Amino acid sequence: MKPGIPKGTRDFGAAEMARRNYIFDTIRSVYSLYGFSQIETPAMENLSTLMGKYGEEGDKLLFKILNSGDFRGGITADGWTGKTLGQLTTALCEKGLRYDLTVPFARYVVQHREELQLPFRRYQIQPVWRADRPQKGRYREFYQCDADVVGSDSLLNEVELMQIVDTVFRRFGIRVCIKINNRKILAGIAEIIGQADKIADITVAIDKLDKIGLENVNAELLKAGITEENVQKLQPIIRLSGSNSDKIETMRHSLVCSETGLKGIEEVEYVLTMLEAQGSLHNEIELDLTLARGLNYYTGCIFEVKAMDVQIGSITGGGRYDNLTGIFGMPGLSGVGISFGADRIYDVLNQLDLYPEEVRTATQVMFVNFGESETRYLMPVVARLRENGIRSEIYPDTVKMKKQMQYANAKAIPYVVLAGENEMESHTVTLKNMVSGEQTQLSIEQLVACLCGA
Amino acid sequence: MKPGIPKGTRDFGAAEMARRNYIFDTIRSVYSLYGFSQIETPAMENLSTLMGKYGEEGDKLLFKILNSGDFRGGITADGWTGKTLGQLTTALCEKGLRYDLTVPFARYVVQHREELQLPFRRYQIQPVWRADRPQKGRYREFYQCDADVVGSDSLLNEVELMQIVDTVFRRFGIRVCIKINNRKILAGIAEIIGQADKIADITVAIDKLDKIGLENVNAELLKAGITEENVQKLQPIIRLSGSNSDKIETMRHSLVCSETGLKGIEEVEYVLTMLEAQGSLHNEIELDLTLARGLNYYTGCIFEVKAMDVQIGSITGGGRYDNLTGIFGMPGLSGVGISFGADRIYDVLNQLDLYPEEVRTATQVMFVNFGESETRYLMPVVARLRENGIRSEIYPDTVKMKKQMQYANAKAIPYVVLAGENEMESHTVTLKNMVSGEQTQLSIEQLVACLCGA
Repeated sequence: MKPGIPKGTRDFGAAEMARRNYIFDTIRSVYSLYGFSQIETPAMENLSTLMGKYGEEGDKLLFKILNSGDFRGGITADGWTGKTLGQLTTALCEKGLRYDLTVPFARYVVQHREELQLPFRRYQIQPVWRADRPQKGRYREFYQCDADVVGSDSLLNEVELMQIVDTVFRRFGIRVCIKINNRKILAGIAEIIGQADKIADITVAIDKLDKIGLENVNAELLKAGITEENVQKLQPIIRLSGSNSDKIETMRHSLVCSETGLKGIEEVEYVLTMLEAQGSLHNEIELDLTLARGLNYYTGCIFEVKAMDVQIGSITGGGRYDNLTGIFGMPGLSGVGISFGADRIYDVLNQLDLYPEEVRTATQVMFVNFGESETRYLMPVVARLRENGIRSEIYPDTVKMKKQMQYANAKAIPYVVLAGENEMESHTVTLKNMVSGEQTQLSIEQLVACLCGA
Repeated sequence: MKPGIPKGTRDFGAAEMARRNYIFDTIRSVYSLYGFSQIETPAMENLSTLMGKYGEEGDKLLFKILNSGDFRGGITADGWTGKTLGQLTTALCEKGLRYDLTVPFARYVVQHREELQLPFRRYQIQPVWRADRPQKGRYREFYQCDADVVGSDSLLNEVELMQIVDTVFRRFGIRVCIKINNRKILAGIAEIIGQADKIADITVAIDKLDKIGLENVNAELLKAGITEENVQKLQPIIRLSGSNSDKIETMRHSLVCSETGLKGIEEVEYVLTMLEAQGSLHNEIELDLTLARGLNYYTGCIFEVKAMDVQIGSITGGGRYDNLTGIFGMPGLSGVGISFGADRIYDVLNQLDLYPEEVRTATQVMFVNFGESETRYLMPVVARLRENGIRSEIYPDTVKMKKQMQYANAKAIPYVVLAGENEMESHTVTLKNMVSGEQTQLSIEQLVACLCGA
């Protein structure tokens, strides 16, 4: 008989929210340090905005909102049984819940084009909804944390996004490897083996190198219709190793006949040089030719972030795209973006136990309630602490001390303040350290000093 | 051909978001100073959780989510035309968007009762959705900012909520009047005139005193079936004026025959005494017997906040209720809560122009892009500033200076840094104050010092 929530959705309690806020606040503050401005778009978009943007499968995974009022509208009994589900959906629903932040952002840019300053650096941290089959780590409601720059072709944007990634994970204390590649290099590879049409197959196959090993990758390439000779030509590329500059030199030779490929090399080299010249990255950055990512969407640099100390998929990703807003009638706008995977970052921080102390402690001090006169004595003290930024609670009910202490323990409140007749007479309080059990009698001034320093 | 958003919904651009974040962050930090923990619940709830909680009209205003997959399910052609809209809705939709934060909170408390420490102090800042007819100031998607304490009957909770209200508006710099009343006083008034059944009519009528004047209030009371004699008895109550303690003394006499009424007086007196004894409120608090608020829901103290310097409705409200979770099978849990009206607070802050400087300034300094070697020279400088917390941008493209300066102006960036050959040779930069137009040549150290102090 207990009430529940829809499958694939979650409640976030106090401890989880403190952690999630820490993640979002950290990302938010780094984004704004780099001049990105936050925007928010409505949870509901017109279905005409959303449909057809995520493929046929995506259309099915959109949550649709039943029209208000008489939704039966023009659908007759014959129509009800005769029309397709798609036709009925269009008749019943005008709105849907956003599926990601990218399409609403594209819609936003086109709708507000006259007010926007280009290049436009925006970030957006909001939930999205997908009617996916729920499973471990996959939810029907989850947050995305995206930043994009649109209206600038400059590779400096790529450089800065890598710095943002590096800074965010440095602040989290998570060691990561930032993998970078370029779609133009992948296109060049397909080109030089004379099988430009097979670029999708090639990329899908070599993307699996880590998982299935070289032999199986080669088998998949052959199965996809790549000739034996071309599979051989691909070997030095697939097995490419060494430093980033070694890889760049090798690839510059391999791709000498592909203008596109060389352009990709040049772009990656620029980004790496700018980052390395500065010596500003704390994490490793690695040119990884097997990195593919959402093949149809990206057109230039692509990146992905792996945690070094936890086995988990990519925790951040992004890249350059050329035509974000074309579908809404505004062609030729280039952009580049990243997206932090908040749920996975949450898991990594949990596994490595990296949350700072202030995230673990909600209320810092609780005042025990012995009755009305004690409460009157304590109220100004509580107020003093709060004025000094100390998160304080006074237990609201005059109940047994044991119950109050249990409450403080269960909430992991580190300090408890007690005041009875003795303290009231001497204008003091007793401060109890809930970890050590130590008790000290202090003046109000001493209490403030002690807790402000704690 | 421009894409749009559903009516009654809004996009929030960079400037609006900065202001909204300031409002939410302020409320959030005060809530946590008082020991409240944040929770979040899913946007979608089961319709069985939501339906029947907001009256018949409310059920219609819920946004319902069309079931995924074959929603046609068991509805035959006859059913499609023969069933009521309500029946069809139940067949087509299992889920809906939350309508407020109170019902999801009640559902949360019942669902997680075993993990929760009572008294449970939670706050929640999330959007809600209502299929209301949109009009000025009324949206189909808007944020609520609620805090509640459940599982404690103590009036100390009311006292602390008033302190929270006072602190939040003090931080905003908005002068307010906090109005307090008690449902038991209203019940007592109806009781002593022998028309306890008319409490709703009496309250609705006297609630209008400000708007329609005494004569019209009396006319309404008569029309509602209150006898002439009883309307006369109500006069001293309706016209009650003077200090809070004057009002309390008068009412104590008037209500001497109503146990409930006297209990209400006692409760209000306790809250006011605790607040006044402390002298901790910066804003005025006023016992207002014409204050009614959601009559069926509240059972004890009720409050409402009015801005002193702007003509606008209530900007915050709340009260004590006795049976939040009864509807989900967990009776007897008392609670008290408040809700800040973020949209109206936004309007008040705008009208009074009270936003602090850091809310107005997104990026603090922009670096002009003169080309690759200048950019290489400037990158470590930008990094230094960001390490010092200065929100900085480097213009990504090497375009005409004029265009870059226009961008800085349009974004109201207060400082611009320039570096050409001269600066590069002397290891300096030129800092331009965009307001005064003043330019100064500075070493990197001086630049950091200057901007960190600005």
